[in-house]
Amino acid sequence: MKLNPHVSVDCVIFGFDSLSLKVLLIDRNLGLKTNKQTAPKSLKLPGSLVYDDEDINTAANRVLKDLTGLENIYLQQFHVFGSPKRLNKKEDLAWLQSQTKMKINRVVTIAYYSLIKLHLSLPCEGKVIWHDVMNLPELAFDHNEIVQKGLLTLRLELNNKPIAFELLPKKFTIRQLQKLYEIILGKNLDNRNFRKSISKWEHILSLKEKEMKVAHKPAQYFKFDKRIYNKMNKEYLTEQ
Amino acid sequence: MKLNPHVSVDCVIFGFDSLSLKVLLIDRNLGLKTNKQTAPKSLKLPGSLVYDDEDINTAANRVLKDLTGLENIYLQQFHVFGSPKRLNKKEDLAWLQSQTKMKINRVVTIAYYSLIKLHLSLPCEGKVIWHDVMNLPELAFDHNEIVQKGLLTLRLELNNKPIAFELLPKKFTIRQLQKLYEIILGKNLDNRNFRKSISKWEHILSLKEKEMKVAHKPAQYFKFDKRIYNKMNKEYLTEQ
Repeated sequence: MKLNPHVSVDCVIFGFDSLSLKVLLIDRNLGLKTNKQTAPKSLKLPGSLVYDDEDINTAANRVLKDLTGLENIYLQQFHVFGSPKRLNKKEDLAWLQSQTKMKINRVVTIAYYSLIKLHLSLPCEGKVIWHDVMNLPELAFDHNEIVQKGLLTLRLELNNKPIAFELLPKKFTIRQLQKLYEIILGKNLDNRNFRKSISKWEHILSLKEKEMKVAHKPAQYFKFDKRIYNKMNKEYLTEQ
Repeated sequence: MKLNPHVSVDCVIFGFDSLSLKVLLIDRNLGLKTNKQTAPKSLKLPGSLVYDDEDINTAANRVLKDLTGLENIYLQQFHVFGSPKRLNKKEDLAWLQSQTKMKINRVVTIAYYSLIKLHLSLPCEGKVIWHDVMNLPELAFDHNEIVQKGLLTLRLELNNKPIAFELLPKKFTIRQLQKLYEIILGKNLDNRNFRKSISKWEHILSLKEKEMKVAHKPAQYFKFDKRIYNKMNKEYLTEQ
């Protein structure tokens, strides 16, 4: 009994472009020196082994910052994936050992999800792939399972936490908000009922501004008021 | 950079005795051969290193079964505690190394919570301590922090999952249910409003039976109907 697997963090970074929910992936074959042109894409979630003397949350923040340049963004632990069979695919194990120059048998990974405003330009553009979360190819390791569990976590937390507003631009239309809810919940919502619900949310304020240069009737913009939301959800604040 | 801490599981096992919420603790000094009579109590959560080739969820179930004899009870991963300073207290590190006969520098622990019907008699009685969760002494390692986070998780999940009914006896009174909600939420609830809310819950059915041998007016018993609950919460079922 060796009893000590390696520990890693993996980040499911979600973004929303008004039409679909995206997840940030990297191509682990991109940096290969040989066969660069023809190597097939091999997509994975951004992640890293946890360094000696490094807190696990610090490791997740490091991965996020190294990739996006962003700090202090929404980042939440959501599940640990610890099956001893996680590295069963030969190409996964080979890649990991070549990357780390270490003999690795088992990695327990702590999964985090993060929410990013997609319209912000990131320094990693070109190096990463924003892929529609609903239509993923086979990813490395158990990363498909991790993304699915991340999406399910969003769904379960949508009513408890102001997740949607981390993904939307600062000013947004009700149509955008509804679309995001529909994708996360995995079902269509009745327009009229949705607007009726929203009208009761004191933490959403209408702005005087409307959409510009759109083909349809310009919709009004709204904004999220964090102060009001926090006041109304005081009992959850202790977690922050 | 060694990059591989040990991985453990720790279980926060909650029970409810109609008056207070309890957590199951074990005294790590109880098995000491020397100084048995005078050794001070040193309470900790039940836990274990994860065995080689053992899934982390399997490890948590093993800890629970070894201690209580129970299988298939409510058990849920809720947070990972991975600070490199978790073993900073000398007596914690010494105990761990003497128990495991291994050189250990760092342990990342995956915390689970479990919900048990306290009126069931467990084979571990006498060996464990059910301690009021609101009034804990200083526990080993970071176990106070783990219990607090577990309690906070219950609070956040109380409206999404049928947590209360895992803790209550099969037939319960509204007074018991309200008391449990008050403890988990950490605040008193208005009796009339609580009964009004409950009356709308289709998954709680009143029984013809009433309390027996009580000093006050006998209260009616209720039961939880899982089938109705699941039907009404279909969207959450995919997680089970």
